[in-house]
Amino acid sequence: MQVDLNADLGEGFGPWPMGDDKAMLDIVTSANIACGFHAGDPEVMARTMRGALARGVGIGAHPGFADLQGFGRRRLALSADELGNLVAYQLGAAQGMARSVGGRVAHLKLHGALSNMATDEADIARACFQAALRVDPDLILVVLAGTRMQAVAAELGARHACEIFADRAYRDDGGLVDRRQPGAVMHDPAEAGRRIVAMLRAGAILTASGKRLPCRIDTVCVHGDSGEAVAMAGAVRAALEAAGIGLATLA
Amino acid sequence: MQVDLNADLGEGFGPWPMGDDKAMLDIVTSANIACGFHAGDPEVMARTMRGALARGVGIGAHPGFADLQGFGRRRLALSADELGNLVAYQLGAAQGMARSVGGRVAHLKLHGALSNMATDEADIARACFQAALRVDPDLILVVLAGTRMQAVAAELGARHACEIFADRAYRDDGGLVDRRQPGAVMHDPAEAGRRIVAMLRAGAILTASGKRLPCRIDTVCVHGDSGEAVAMAGAVRAALEAAGIGLATLA
Amino acid sequence: MQVDLNADLGEGFGPWPMGDDKAMLDIVTSANIACGFHAGDPEVMARTMRGALARGVGIGAHPGFADLQGFGRRRLALSADELGNLVAYQLGAAQGMARSVGGRVAHLKLHGALSNMATDEADIARACFQAALRVDPDLILVVLAGTRMQAVAAELGARHACEIFADRAYRDDGGLVDRRQPGAVMHDPAEAGRRIVAMLRAGAILTASGKRLPCRIDTVCVHGDSGEAVAMAGAVRAALEAAGIGLATLA
Amino acid sequence: MQVDLNADLGEGFGPWPMGDDKAMLDIVTSANIACGFHAGDPEVMARTMRGALARGVGIGAHPGFADLQGFGRRRLALSADELGNLVAYQLGAAQGMARSVGGRVAHLKLHGALSNMATDEADIARACFQAALRVDPDLILVVLAGTRMQAVAAELGARHACEIFADRAYRDDGGLVDRRQPGAVMHDPAEAGRRIVAMLRAGAILTASGKRLPCRIDTVCVHGDSGEAVAMAGAVRAALEAAGIGLATLA
Repeated sequence: MQVDLNADLGEGFGPWPMGDDKAMLDIVTSANIACGFHAGDPEVMARTMRGALARGVGIGAHPGFADLQGFGRRRLALSADELGNLVAYQLGAAQGMARSVGGRVAHLKLHGALSNMATDEADIARACFQAALRVDPDLILVVLAGTRMQAVAAELGARHACEIFADRAYRDDGGLVDRRQPGAVMHDPAEAGRRIVAMLRAGAILTASGKRLPCRIDTVCVHGDSGEAVAMAGAVRAALEAAGIGLATLA
Repeated sequence: MQVDLNADLGEGFGPWPMGDDKAMLDIVTSANIACGFHAGDPEVMARTMRGALARGVGIGAHPGFADLQGFGRRRLALSADELGNLVAYQLGAAQGMARSVGGRVAHLKLHGALSNMATDEADIARACFQAALRVDPDLILVVLAGTRMQAVAAELGARHACEIFADRAYRDDGGLVDRRQPGAVMHDPAEAGRRIVAMLRAGAILTASGKRLPCRIDTVCVHGDSGEAVAMAGAVRAALEAAGIGLATLA
Repeated sequence: MQVDLNADLGEGFGPWPMGDDKAMLDIVTSANIACGFHAGDPEVMARTMRGALARGVGIGAHPGFADLQGFGRRRLALSADELGNLVAYQLGAAQGMARSVGGRVAHLKLHGALSNMATDEADIARACFQAALRVDPDLILVVLAGTRMQAVAAELGARHACEIFADRAYRDDGGLVDRRQPGAVMHDPAEAGRRIVAMLRAGAILTASGKRLPCRIDTVCVHGDSGEAVAMAGAVRAALEAAGIGLATLA
Repeated sequence: MQVDLNADLGEGFGPWPMGDDKAMLDIVTSANIACGFHAGDPEVMARTMRGALARGVGIGAHPGFADLQGFGRRRLALSADELGNLVAYQLGAAQGMARSVGGRVAHLKLHGALSNMATDEADIARACFQAALRVDPDLILVVLAGTRMQAVAAELGARHACEIFADRAYRDDGGLVDRRQPGAVMHDPAEAGRRIVAMLRAGAILTASGKRLPCRIDTVCVHGDSGEAVAMAGAVRAALEAAGIGLATLA
């Protein structure tokens, strides 16, 4: 049994760093790298991709809305064409930066409000994914396990990877417990590690209420935007290794 | 004898058009398409590239400084690394957009102040071109005929195309007469057409003073940002055809 | 009887003009000037304000979402605090530019999607208007006659001006007929002029179905983004003058 | 004897903080607040200004180039008109934000490359300062003590405050030792404190070589972008207090 461990990296911009990309690149097997619209700039992208390449970490494009101030977390009403072009542009930019440092983009994961909207509405996921596949038909689409996004990726015949979250509680319908609810975000690294191992062995999402939702699991998302987050990511990796679960990048 | 005819297109942004892209796409054989930093946005890029593709016009990336208000015409002091990343990002984005509409980027031409700086300083041209070639080693670099830019492209062993301007007067050192000088810009389409044919037959730049500067000429740049410009471009094309000079895209 | 005639002006950006600001400044009595977020830049603002000042046209701030590509027409989900700060910043910037050319900002009108959202939700109108009034308690708020925006301005005890549109058909509930419906936008200048005079004399919005909705009318909005629009604006002004209705700026 | 202590604050943007604004606001008497072009956004400005207001810290506008990625540190070739409009817009925006939180902008200090260019060329300082004074004739201009900027402010009859740096070594011509030189930046808080007290008592800049350059000193600049910087700022304040030198905001 093996799994990929992914994190959103390269989320600094200009003079502003975010998280500890170097520490995270030593832990994860895939990096979702911001493409300059909600975070990231050509320098940050080049640096993060070089770091990923040096460690054999998979490089992914992580496109979001063109809303730097809002970090791509505010919903913006775009047409299907605009969504497709938004994704094609950022994916292309990421491919260009990857090639310029000697690498290549293996996967794509939508960011923030764009991801939330694509989870809520299949048409939005479809607009984004179709554009991405026109840019690269072999691209691996990272989708939330058991959601509409997964269904759309499958319907399009795309290579895709199903993702679960290391530190978020799940509802019985497979959605994430709202961040504002108590217990929505796990803070105990040991507990998070145990739960992820249990999910992988079960081949299912284990919900907050104890329910079991069978699903394909290809990658586990960890966060890297704080010192606590790095410790959590490290603990999850250690738990996976201790359980004999192999770590391998998506490609 | 044959030559390419190129113009800067796709220079609108959001609600603001610029020039008559459709009319120009019926005249030129190569389009240098703005990449979203000094002009252009993903919608404009997609639309312009589709138009180029439908007419067999070559698609080129036209990167510039990230200065939308200044249209990339104001010099910005960047390091060599920043210049390279600026070009790699925009070239990649253009490639992504081109693939998303079923095309591909064949050439690259620097825009505005970035082009002026690369003409003035070989190190700047080198930083830009090296990054572009890392993204695509087969890319055709459009360079001002007889300048440092041409020398750098040759030194890098890159495919390149040497460019002369249809409507600009030349100094005896091969540079362009400053726009503020009388006679710097030609307004008579018939005269411009005659001069371009004469230059191509001579295999040389013909300067304002009547001097002849032998150089390789692969492409002729026409402007398309006004009604007058479209008429000029059409006249230049007609003159080339009347003289039996073939028109063919760079690739 | 007298009324103000307003238009959205200064909607160019960098190298891209929009509409014929000079022609419009000879027609209107108040100019709603874009503040740099959805359109306009410091140069465009200075130039437009100088033009308004020279003709005795009232200067207004016209804030919108920070979405240049979408021209502020795409809805963006912001919190009440973010909305207030968005408006305060742009109003302050407009005041700074106005003072720098010897004028002052007399009124404020929300732009595009921000205006639509403030018409739909009183809380959004309140967040925007309260922030604007903290910046300038004497500011005149331009509101759509008979809408929630008007109610909010009144509730805040603000000076306000009620606006009707010269070229848009009205529904019986006082809203505008959707642009995609036939007849939603009037194209006959003579007819538009007659209708506006009839509305002012009636002290009421006259709907497409012939219904009469009594309301306060302080200002008439005309558009200026095309040649047709300028002709329409001129016809409306001529009709008002022919009917003996005085034209006076809001302040 | 008394002096002002100033720092550049509000230099976060969107999701990215910079420095410890709260700690710095407890130390300084004036805050130079970024205006959204090179750093800062309406939320950051409102928050920083509220913090300044609550502590009686003077609020200043800190305009820079519209280059968020470059943090306003890269030179950009603008015309005099563009420079003036750049400053007027940002100053107005800062005034709007200040009024929206119940405060007012007392002073202005140029940022980064814009400040460097204004120190190098009197015409650039003049373009910036004249525009600022048209927006607010009572504005206090913070200028580098003994430089062209000071001469321009005096020539314009403007209220101004002459500034020295707490942690930078001076050349014998009154300029700052280049950051790349050893000893250019002081790291010992106690030494920096002693030197500043000595300069204030001497009414002169004390250069790295031991020379004494008499000048007016109204304000001391400390940095706040790191933990070390906060310690340095605190030490400078403590040294001033221990020496019986009063601390008072500019206005």
